[in-house]
Amino acid sequence: MAKKILIVGGVAGGATTAARLRRLDEKAEIVLFERGEYISFANCGLPYYIGGIIEERDALLVQTPEDMSRKFNIDIRVFNEVTKINREDKSVTVKNLKTEELYQESYDYIVLSPGANPIFPPIPGINEADNLFTLRSIPDTDRIKDYVDNRKPKAAIVIGGGFIGIEMAENLHYRGIEVTLVEMANQIMAPIDYEMAAILHNHLRDKGVQLILEDGVKAFEDSGKKVLLQSGKAVSIDLIILAIGVKPENQLAKEAGLALGEKGGILTNPYLETSDPAIYAIGDAIEINDYINGNPAMIPLAGPANKQGRIAANNIIGKRETYSGTLGTAVAKIFDMTVASTGNNERTLKQLGVNYQAIHLHPGSHAGYYPGAFPISMKLLFESNSGKILGAQAVGHKGVEKRIDVIATAIKGNLTAVDLKELELSYAPPFSSAKDPVNMLGFVAANILEGLTDTFQWYEIKDILQADALLIDVRDEIERDLGYIDGSINIPLGELRNRLPEIPKNKTIYVYCQVGIRGYIAARILMQEGYKVKNLDGGYKTYQSIYA
Amino acid sequence: MAKKILIVGGVAGGATTAARLRRLDEKAEIVLFERGEYISFANCGLPYYIGGIIEERDALLVQTPEDMSRKFNIDIRVFNEVTKINREDKSVTVKNLKTEELYQESYDYIVLSPGANPIFPPIPGINEADNLFTLRSIPDTDRIKDYVDNRKPKAAIVIGGGFIGIEMAENLHYRGIEVTLVEMANQIMAPIDYEMAAILHNHLRDKGVQLILEDGVKAFEDSGKKVLLQSGKAVSIDLIILAIGVKPENQLAKEAGLALGEKGGILTNPYLETSDPAIYAIGDAIEINDYINGNPAMIPLAGPANKQGRIAANNIIGKRETYSGTLGTAVAKIFDMTVASTGNNERTLKQLGVNYQAIHLHPGSHAGYYPGAFPISMKLLFESNSGKILGAQAVGHKGVEKRIDVIATAIKGNLTAVDLKELELSYAPPFSSAKDPVNMLGFVAANILEGLTDTFQWYEIKDILQADALLIDVRDEIERDLGYIDGSINIPLGELRNRLPEIPKNKTIYVYCQVGIRGYIAARILMQEGYKVKNLDGGYKTYQSIYA
Ligand SMILES: Cc1cc2nc3c(=O)[nH]c(=O)nc-3n(C[C@H](O)[C@H](O)[C@H](O)COP(=O)(O)OP(=O)(O)OC[C@H]3O[C@@H](n4cnc5c(N)ncnc54)[C@H](O)[C@@H]3O)c2cc1C
Ligand SMILES: Cc1cc2nc3c(=O)[nH]c(=O)nc-3n(C[C@H](O)[C@H](O)[C@H](O)COP(=O)(O)OP(=O)(O)OC[C@H]3O[C@@H](n4cnc5c(N)ncnc54)[C@H](O)[C@@H]3O)c2cc1C
Ligand SMILES: CC(C)(COP(=O)(O)OP(=O)(O)OC[C@H]1O[C@@H](n2cnc3c(N)ncnc32)[C@H](O)[C@@H]1OP(=O)(O)O)[C@@H](O)C(=O)NCCC(=O)NCCS
Ligand SMILES: CC(C)(COP(=O)(O)OP(=O)(O)OC[C@H]1O[C@@H](n2cnc3c(N)ncnc32)[C@H](O)[C@@H]1OP(=O)(O)O)[C@@H](O)C(=O)NCCC(=O)NCCS
Repeated sequence: MAKKILIVGGVAGGATTAARLRRLDEKAEIVLFERGEYISFANCGLPYYIGGIIEERDALLVQTPEDMSRKFNIDIRVFNEVTKINREDKSVTVKNLKTEELYQESYDYIVLSPGANPIFPPIPGINEADNLFTLRSIPDTDRIKDYVDNRKPKAAIVIGGGFIGIEMAENLHYRGIEVTLVEMANQIMAPIDYEMAAILHNHLRDKGVQLILEDGVKAFEDSGKKVLLQSGKAVSIDLIILAIGVKPENQLAKEAGLALGEKGGILTNPYLETSDPAIYAIGDAIEINDYINGNPAMIPLAGPANKQGRIAANNIIGKRETYSGTLGTAVAKIFDMTVASTGNNERTLKQLGVNYQAIHLHPGSHAGYYPGAFPISMKLLFESNSGKILGAQAVGHKGVEKRIDVIATAIKGNLTAVDLKELELSYAPPFSSAKDPVNMLGFVAANILEGLTDTFQWYEIKDILQADALLIDVRDEIERDLGYIDGSINIPLGELRNRLPEIPKNKTIYVYCQVGIRGYIAARILMQEGYKVKNLDGGYKTYQSIYA
Repeated sequence: MAKKILIVGGVAGGATTAARLRRLDEKAEIVLFERGEYISFANCGLPYYIGGIIEERDALLVQTPEDMSRKFNIDIRVFNEVTKINREDKSVTVKNLKTEELYQESYDYIVLSPGANPIFPPIPGINEADNLFTLRSIPDTDRIKDYVDNRKPKAAIVIGGGFIGIEMAENLHYRGIEVTLVEMANQIMAPIDYEMAAILHNHLRDKGVQLILEDGVKAFEDSGKKVLLQSGKAVSIDLIILAIGVKPENQLAKEAGLALGEKGGILTNPYLETSDPAIYAIGDAIEINDYINGNPAMIPLAGPANKQGRIAANNIIGKRETYSGTLGTAVAKIFDMTVASTGNNERTLKQLGVNYQAIHLHPGSHAGYYPGAFPISMKLLFESNSGKILGAQAVGHKGVEKRIDVIATAIKGNLTAVDLKELELSYAPPFSSAKDPVNMLGFVAANILEGLTDTFQWYEIKDILQADALLIDVRDEIERDLGYIDGSINIPLGELRNRLPEIPKNKTIYVYCQVGIRGYIAARILMQEGYKVKNLDGGYKTYQSIYA
């Protein structure tokens, strides 16, 4: 008999599940419930429509209910909210939001893809702030756009420095609005580490965004015209965007007694079945395993939601397939820069007590002699003994996400950090270098793992200088004009071999250059002369993004 | 005792070997011989300097002999040609090209990185053509640039449609010169297949390059002012660039009795030792193994040369390491387009009798709703049973080489075509889609391998129509206005379920749409109704690049 499958949620996960189900099973009865007006819309495009970069609202609607039901013969019910799952008799209760009518619908299988909701904390004055918006749906977008178009706000505050907060800051800026971005942590973009985010902090400030870190909102006053921060600062604005994260939409699941994780995400097994095997769950609503460390995690991204939808459909039709966890590969455009990352960051690895190594490089996006190359600041994290790749981050103007995608692929292929040196990546001057930045990470990783070089990190410099260590800047004298680390002496690489007598043998020598490569060469010279040497990972350029 | 290492050739492979050797061994005696004036120059940038895109000649000189010897303490001898290897007494004979003096130099190890030479066939009149140039070195570049700057040629012919020929065609065009490109084969860019090259043919013609395929030069007349083609055509021009490929520089090796391969490349073992273990060879001069099929091949690219240099240095110092073969990952900019590829092409697989499958897709470079997306035409080749990835090709305006790099990495990680569906690649609207084009290849590959879909290829259409098969165009009627395959009938996908009675059950049904996806959906509908169906791989878009 034909299977009857109910899908809750009609966007990234839900619509994909429906389409795949139909392709696999022409006879299945598929009903898609969406409580909103729209299915299959481009959540990820919403900020850009507000900013005017995406000009046509219609472009956000990837599929209309009419198109989709014609193409896929699916019973699509917008404005219909599933309010209850009655597991005993395998039915759901649905509320038609237009008519307020309630009705029942039976099922063989349910797929829950209800997404997540913006966090909305009980800050004093939040409910009175009539200029405060969150962004998740098309109606949210319409409201914000309408406010910007018609009320012409001069100043806005964006609360939260995650992907959506930053995208909104940028897009409001494009609309000519003075933007203040407030973030509770000491950095924006939680998936990357502090020294990488520091580059973005500088870029945002260069672009005219007022960035307030390590501060949160204490209260909204004057119907939202004034935002009081915990530091005591007050900001007067016309528009507030609240983007401090999302929490899984777990109401239905919870009430149905399905197992939830600690963070509130719906729990599934690798087949994406919830604790009730007739009910699958996917997307932002579920807790997944972190692909690197195996721990439970919430990673609300569209790629995983889409892939999970396809897997859930396969399993329902009997093509058993598992989901292997989420790496968290992500990218964002931030004004002229791109930031991308995959896997775990250093903060996470420290918390987990993993024995790791970090590498920072600043290779060019392509060959330096071909115009238009920009440095990419890259960070690779790998296990100290095995070389297993644990994570990677990159910030730059061009070619950033390409390198992260390559590393994300290497992780899935179980390649180690050292294996990166053998990747055969495409090279012509407009695109890369004969030694691609990813190869370079591999070379450096190999050198570290083989003991050819030893490095120290930007955050160790203070202690090193306090311990009265010798810090040698091996750049040319002229480069110091643009800045150097206080307390360092200068011996240019080209003079090093002749000036060995100046360097004491009885203590560790710390060397640095601009990006790390000459420091490495200097270290090799000194080590072979019997010195114990450490080279500043990432060089002055990494140091400078934080301290200069 | 300190090792004495002689390096022959001071550019991509040679200079890299020297630098790595020094980093590993501060005491080694390293002598680098280069018969030209320059070491360590950017071969790959030469066409762009002629075209004026790279403005400064100095930018081409990555390292000067002075810099490099200061930094690396290497004895660099430009204008010194190694003319003989005396293996019996472990010495070489060197000719100082300035003084004509000959001298001997002893060695513990030699690294040969002498590169390759442009092929210069004995075509009648070639030696009299005083406007004919090949391009390999800085002096070659100076000569061509000088000719263009001062003689202001109006029309040029480029002979050979490989990377260098095409880059020269483009760069001469930028200089305002009418360019004719002649290629003996039926396509340019031998690493990719015909239907992919067809897209580039159209682009070159759109840009005003006169493209002559399946024709060769018969003779040069009038001191090179006239080029006679084998077809009988004659082209009058002011400048000739001969770029029909390179042959390995094997003279020294041959005379020293080192083993050579069939194609003239120096033979090495995986450690990059020649038949004499004291002599290593790397770069364009050596024969490598094709990483995919294991056969001997010549793949003259800078990435492999650089990587081999590092491996040779490691081996000499006793850090034993092997080279695992070359995939041939390559990329070129062709006016506004990019072409990239990795692994084997379909032609090669056919020749080898491999049981393979091909997929053609045309996904957007990024989300269609975000401005600036362009389709990428992609081709994936994989083994029919195992799903082993055999090769990939892509042509488009943006994000092309990113996808090829990801696939090249997947190959090195032993991921199968099906595994591509699980890659977690970075997604935000300006960069990709939630289902990245590479994921899409994985989905389609899985569908083929699991028998969910069966495809036919562009080159089968003629036979299919002759056999009086039913070919259904499932696009909307309006799309046919811009072209369709003669002999096809139109049943739009949205009407298909209602029009099944029109479709006979007694023969294979062939369906097609614009890019393949609606054809696939149609095929799924029909297959489940009991039809035998094949979908046109790549859709009308692939067909059209060849026939329309
Ligand atoms: C502004 C913005 C920008 C983003 N940018 C990116 C990006 O660049 N890259 C990226 O990877 N991800 C991005 N995301 C995240 C991405 O959109 C989500 O990860 C993805 O949409 C999750 O898919 P889902 O199916 O789980 O949930 P959703 O796509 O949110 O769909 C859930 C749907 O379920 C409906 N629903 C919920 N409960 C019920 C019910 N009981 N009955 C009926 N319907 C119900 C909701 O109305 C909603 O429409 C962005 C998100 C936003 C909001
Ligand atoms: C115009 C052009 C564009 C290119 N574009 C690309 C590209 O975009 N991407 C890519 O991957 N590759 C590209 N290449 C190919 C790349 O440059 C080569 O693969 C690479 O340089 C090979 O390195 P090699 O060390 O083997 O040879 P080379 O770099 O050519 O160095 C060999 C050197 O050895 C010297 N020599 C030879 N014999 C002797 C001797 N007996 N004594 C002393 N010296 C000797 C020669 O003078 C020469 O300088 C391009 C090449 C050219 C010419
Ligand atoms: C639009 C939507 C309904 C499409 O679902 P879908 O049909 O599975 O996805 P696509 O249109 O991308 O097509 C993918 C399917 O076509 C197939 N396909 C793609 N190109 C093909 C080609 N050229 N030839 C043959 N098959 C092809 C794939 O194999 C896949 O089918 P499968 O899952 O059966 O293997 C759904 O993705 C959606 O709602 N997206 C918008 C919401 C969203 O994702 N938001 C978050 C990001 S902004
Ligand atoms: C310039 C040239 C001599 C450099 O050789 P090189 O020193 O090996 O190469 P690079 O300058 O790219 O540096 C790579 C080295 O620095 C290390 N390195 C790079 N960045 C680093 C950093 N930030 N910190 C520490 N080490 C770093 C790498 O590990 C590698 O060292 P290793 O081989 O000992 O592991 C040589 O590549 C050359 O001649 N190139 C031009 C010619 C050419 O390639 N032509 C064809 C393409 S146009």
